[in-house]
Amino acid sequence: MPQNDAQGLSEFDAATAVRRSEGGGFVADLHPGWDVGSGILNGGYLLAVAARAALADSPHPHPVAVSASYLRATPPGPASLAVTPGPAGRTLAHTGVVLSGPAGPTLSVQVTTAALGDDAPLRSVPVPDVPPVESCLQAGPGAEMGGHPVPAVGLRHRVETRLDPATAGWALGTPSGEPVMRAWLRLADGREPDPLTLLLFADVLPPTSWSMGLMGWAPTVQLQVLVRARPAPGWCLAEARANEIAGGWLDEEYRIWDSSGRLVAQSRQLARAPR
Amino acid sequence: MPQNDAQGLSEFDAATAVRRSEGGGFVADLHPGWDVGSGILNGGYLLAVAARAALADSPHPHPVAVSASYLRATPPGPASLAVTPGPAGRTLAHTGVVLSGPAGPTLSVQVTTAALGDDAPLRSVPVPDVPPVESCLQAGPGAEMGGHPVPAVGLRHRVETRLDPATAGWALGTPSGEPVMRAWLRLADGREPDPLTLLLFADVLPPTSWSMGLMGWAPTVQLQVLVRARPAPGWCLAEARANEIAGGWLDEEYRIWDSSGRLVAQSRQLARAPR
Repeated sequence: MPQNDAQGLSEFDAATAVRRSEGGGFVADLHPGWDVGSGILNGGYLLAVAARAALADSPHPHPVAVSASYLRATPPGPASLAVTPGPAGRTLAHTGVVLSGPAGPTLSVQVTTAALGDDAPLRSVPVPDVPPVESCLQAGPGAEMGGHPVPAVGLRHRVETRLDPATAGWALGTPSGEPVMRAWLRLADGREPDPLTLLLFADVLPPTSWSMGLMGWAPTVQLQVLVRARPAPGWCLAEARANEIAGGWLDEEYRIWDSSGRLVAQSRQLARAPR
Repeated sequence: MPQNDAQGLSEFDAATAVRRSEGGGFVADLHPGWDVGSGILNGGYLLAVAARAALADSPHPHPVAVSASYLRATPPGPASLAVTPGPAGRTLAHTGVVLSGPAGPTLSVQVTTAALGDDAPLRSVPVPDVPPVESCLQAGPGAEMGGHPVPAVGLRHRVETRLDPATAGWALGTPSGEPVMRAWLRLADGREPDPLTLLLFADVLPPTSWSMGLMGWAPTVQLQVLVRARPAPGWCLAEARANEIAGGWLDEEYRIWDSSGRLVAQSRQLARAPR
């Protein structure tokens, strides 16, 4: 059942809300509960906040392409968003958003907005074969990994994450050696997925390098997310994959399908590889 | 043999050169010869110009991640580049670049610079099996497609493009139905590839939707390129693939390997699908 706050907003909607600032632009209160450990906010959560600022003045309702440079770690708390409108046409509009914390700019984002339709795809990617949700492994809270409790990561309380056992060896102390993870995802507050949620889901899994036994954090440097369709209600399935890990860098590619089996989002990021 | 201009620059280096402007920022002369038809400049060519402006004041020598929003078509001729430096550290630096033509901003780019090393990859993607260059199909100039001469596309004079026959059915009037293209690539002026050249190569092939018989132009909306290693001398091999074509949009993913078989670049773009 959706858990709503006093304004009737879901937890996700409340935590990603932006409001107009008197001096122009927008402000947000970045919620500490959407962290990946050590108080570091999740990169996908921040994208959803930035996209809300871009959508506020766009003639179009959905983010379809979002590219972000992660300039510095963004702390929880008050943030401002400076919005630079670009060309806006009948089909799409471009907007630049710079998110700043108390110490200055932390995230520079380019958002393309448009209206996602219901057209059946001419061509798509079939959903991979993954066991049903109830046969998958719950990743925190309450889960154990390799006999140890999962570290306190706020994000895992906000996004229910059920790992495909075939790609969850790292959680049991036996990494598969293949930098691939698949997981069923949904918001813990019961809110159904939409294009903004997909921005969150596009960076929500642990680094796939964990499947190679490299268990550190992999900070995102640049991330691009494409939203391809409005997701149907229910669980989404994400598959993340690193292609090349070399010289201290790795890429991370996501494909996300909705409960109807349609490809609804793709992302790619460059990250620093864990040492 | 490299063809150099009066300053000893290769054709590519001369066409992507930037110089400091008296009022700050940089200026460039965008060369009409790097077009994809109808005077429209190639998106990868423009990325290389923008990356040069970002590199000019960066402490690091290579573009490793470049994300661009294509705001409007960029005409050949004089252009200015406004550069916004971001945080610069020991490992990487961020820079924003806005390229403007006579009618205003046309391209907004985020560039991450760093030093690409020579480390052997921990993990990589093997090069696909493609016939040798001499068994592949020359795309323009002088080539025919389906019995008709190739339309005048300047880019094909600048980049030697040899199509894998298995993915070149569209050029012979029998599209394969699979939105995949593979091709050997090198600069026609004889200049060896480097990270800047890879930005050009990451958007150099015709739309893969041509393999589905959709023969129109597919304008790029957003493009992200990751450069993963310095390429070895010789031909590069590019593989481009569309995953989803729906609702008037398509994505286009590139992987590029160098002559030693190493994955050296990846790109993904969202484009408007040809009608």
